[in-house]
Amino acid sequence: MKTNLFLALFLFNSVAFFAQTKDEQVFKEIYNSALTNSKCYSWLDHLSNDIGSRLSGSDGAARAVEYTKKQMETLGFDKVYLQEVMVPKWVRGEKETAYIQDNKTKIKVPICALGGSISTPKNGITAEVIEVHSFDELKTLGVDKIKGKIVFYNRPMNNADIETFDAYSGAVDQRYGGAAAASKYGAVGTIVRSMNLRLDDFPHTGGQSYGDIPKEQFIPTAAISTNAAELLSKTLKSNPNVKFYFKQSCQKMDDVLSYNVVGEIKGTEHPENIMVVGGHLDSWDLADGSHDDGAGVVQSMEVMNIFNNIKYKPKNTLRVVLFMNEENGTRGGKKYEELSLANKENHIFALESDSGGFTPRGFSLECNDANFAKISSWKNVFEPYLIHSFVKGHSGSDIEALTSKTIVKAGLKPDSQRYFDYHHAANDTFDAIDKRELELGAGTMAALVYMIDQNGIQ
Amino acid sequence: MKTNLFLALFLFNSVAFFAQTKDEQVFKEIYNSALTNSKCYSWLDHLSNDIGSRLSGSDGAARAVEYTKKQMETLGFDKVYLQEVMVPKWVRGEKETAYIQDNKTKIKVPICALGGSISTPKNGITAEVIEVHSFDELKTLGVDKIKGKIVFYNRPMNNADIETFDAYSGAVDQRYGGAAAASKYGAVGTIVRSMNLRLDDFPHTGGQSYGDIPKEQFIPTAAISTNAAELLSKTLKSNPNVKFYFKQSCQKMDDVLSYNVVGEIKGTEHPENIMVVGGHLDSWDLADGSHDDGAGVVQSMEVMNIFNNIKYKPKNTLRVVLFMNEENGTRGGKKYEELSLANKENHIFALESDSGGFTPRGFSLECNDANFAKISSWKNVFEPYLIHSFVKGHSGSDIEALTSKTIVKAGLKPDSQRYFDYHHAANDTFDAIDKRELELGAGTMAALVYMIDQNGIQ
Repeated sequence: MKTNLFLALFLFNSVAFFAQTKDEQVFKEIYNSALTNSKCYSWLDHLSNDIGSRLSGSDGAARAVEYTKKQMETLGFDKVYLQEVMVPKWVRGEKETAYIQDNKTKIKVPICALGGSISTPKNGITAEVIEVHSFDELKTLGVDKIKGKIVFYNRPMNNADIETFDAYSGAVDQRYGGAAAASKYGAVGTIVRSMNLRLDDFPHTGGQSYGDIPKEQFIPTAAISTNAAELLSKTLKSNPNVKFYFKQSCQKMDDVLSYNVVGEIKGTEHPENIMVVGGHLDSWDLADGSHDDGAGVVQSMEVMNIFNNIKYKPKNTLRVVLFMNEENGTRGGKKYEELSLANKENHIFALESDSGGFTPRGFSLECNDANFAKISSWKNVFEPYLIHSFVKGHSGSDIEALTSKTIVKAGLKPDSQRYFDYHHAANDTFDAIDKRELELGAGTMAALVYMIDQNGIQ
Repeated sequence: MKTNLFLALFLFNSVAFFAQTKDEQVFKEIYNSALTNSKCYSWLDHLSNDIGSRLSGSDGAARAVEYTKKQMETLGFDKVYLQEVMVPKWVRGEKETAYIQDNKTKIKVPICALGGSISTPKNGITAEVIEVHSFDELKTLGVDKIKGKIVFYNRPMNNADIETFDAYSGAVDQRYGGAAAASKYGAVGTIVRSMNLRLDDFPHTGGQSYGDIPKEQFIPTAAISTNAAELLSKTLKSNPNVKFYFKQSCQKMDDVLSYNVVGEIKGTEHPENIMVVGGHLDSWDLADGSHDDGAGVVQSMEVMNIFNNIKYKPKNTLRVVLFMNEENGTRGGKKYEELSLANKENHIFALESDSGGFTPRGFSLECNDANFAKISSWKNVFEPYLIHSFVKGHSGSDIEALTSKTIVKAGLKPDSQRYFDYHHAANDTFDAIDKRELELGAGTMAALVYMIDQNGIQ
């Protein structure tokens, strides 16, 4: 008995030892491939510099579908196909104009319409401004003090938060629901401090929703740069009657046909089990969206390129999915899940990269405790690649719709400090991408897919 | 006995628990101060944009001494003083010129003289080029193939290294010792591929040494941008007789008087124990040296500012030391140690920040095993601030001279992926600094100083 136990322990340890050694070896090959033989940076160069912005329904989005499908077809998938999805189409129209003005002076300030906003009347809106920091404050002020005015939401993202996504979560209600909330008190428009921790001159767009208010109560809403928000606030302190003027000509069009782009390679052992790796093809319209989410798109494609380079054939079916319409509807993610349910597919794993192309630090995981413990136990294989952080948390908007009970969902967690310097603003461009950081992210994604593929889920 | 043991354990655990809670609380205050109430970014703005480059012996270096001393005097130190140190002075002279040329074409390429190099003759040097990748190759080629030629060192930094400092260590011999090595085989000059992982157009300067070769054998040496190195290598493949022309007018002047800047606050409990926090004031001359090492300078000063903000009085004596001449002599570091020995001082701790102002990831530690274990055991307090990496390794060049047996030396380890994009090149400027990343580095330094101060060393 003792001998058997000893033998069993010896064998167990040997298996564990060899497994570790093998994983270490494969990790080395994965990261070597990512850092010395990758295509993701040049793919992103094309996506950003030759195609440019890719808002749902735009020409850029259509060209991005075409380009990525073509590139995916070179990667040795069993099939590359498009999934039809009807997406909202919203267009910005002319560049917005805005002024802080009193009787004597008129200071031009940088604003941009928020996605989904209605336009102002053709000649713009001029009104007094009331600065608030929360929806509760609207209630306190009441209709009397708000009616006829422009509500100016100026609660900054909290600089003391270590993770910038926490700071974003703590402020984005103003952007997403601010117009609907202010309209209920008779505001004629809203101006929202940009979701940006830095003081600069870029207004940051982003999705907003009128919620359940009737269409005739929709009011135009725009983001203002953080520097201009500071200026407006300061000006209001010295002159509460100062007026704000803004003009925007954005509009919502009819929904149009677009696509998710999918590349699939059948698993060699468990073809019925599906692992998804993805990012979103659409971007906001102010820039080429290199970080949000060009990076996630090309990193996801790179996972397949890495597996080709190191000659790794996944045991489970691997799908690289480039989702459409994350930014203003997540219709692509929902359509993917709808089709998956209709086809009775079994997803074991989904990984999204949608937090920028910065140095990867780890993963945020949505899964049960057993899987969390299992994945966390792989820390030591990841550590030489400076991947330390395995935490529970939101994985990704496009894979949110995947709701199977046993699925493991993960989000790549890159360093977040600079993300909101660029997010949804005109400076989210290719020159803000560092090649090595992008490649390390792709390698890290491939490494996790490999571990899940080898070890399965609980 | 059992009761006593239980009580002892209970008390021990309580102390540990409360200590942890107190440390957690102080960490929160430290990072809050760093992210919401710091001066380091505006100090760096002045150092970079108003003063600029600060090579030892330059006007910029002198102005930086004056400025930082003045700022340090506002921080409530017991005393702020200068330590005299004679430093080498080397000046670049006119901007360098270089061409790849054959009979028909002449292509201008970006080069810069390496620090300490001699000038070319006034009209420059034109010679055939021999490309090598190691000193061993020189031996194989021998005098016959090298004499009269320009040796072109073109071994790239290894992209597959995860830590870019490893890639740097693996290639920098070409820059540091390349001229002396090639001169022995009769080369008339050397051109070194820039220490840069990225392909771009910036030549990167840096220290070089003629070692023990006699003065009449000194040959001029320069760095060439990575893009131009690729071009030169490609050109040599198609035309081995292509010539290279370069002209530089740099020269070594007499040593001049300069200073380390020191701020000191006496410890409340152990004034005889000294903790040093520092960076280096000098920078290369091609840019304002915001990452190397303006960042380290202002972060070190910020440690004192944070302690002021949170009203923390160190138990041990704290010195913020801004070292002069790290880049081409480390005379400041050596002088500091010399004076310290003469004064029979007892240093328990030294921390240097000289790896750029990027997101901090951890520390590299030079200390005995007991101290390494002790410091590593603080990981859990650091983890909420995304500080995961405690490794043994080089701490910092300026504190290298501190050689007491029991001292703990630490280097701040920021994310290294982008460091060599900027290191010693014309793009190491203030716009390459992210405010939050810089501030997080300062907070992380203050946090480690606090822990050492509270817990002592083994």
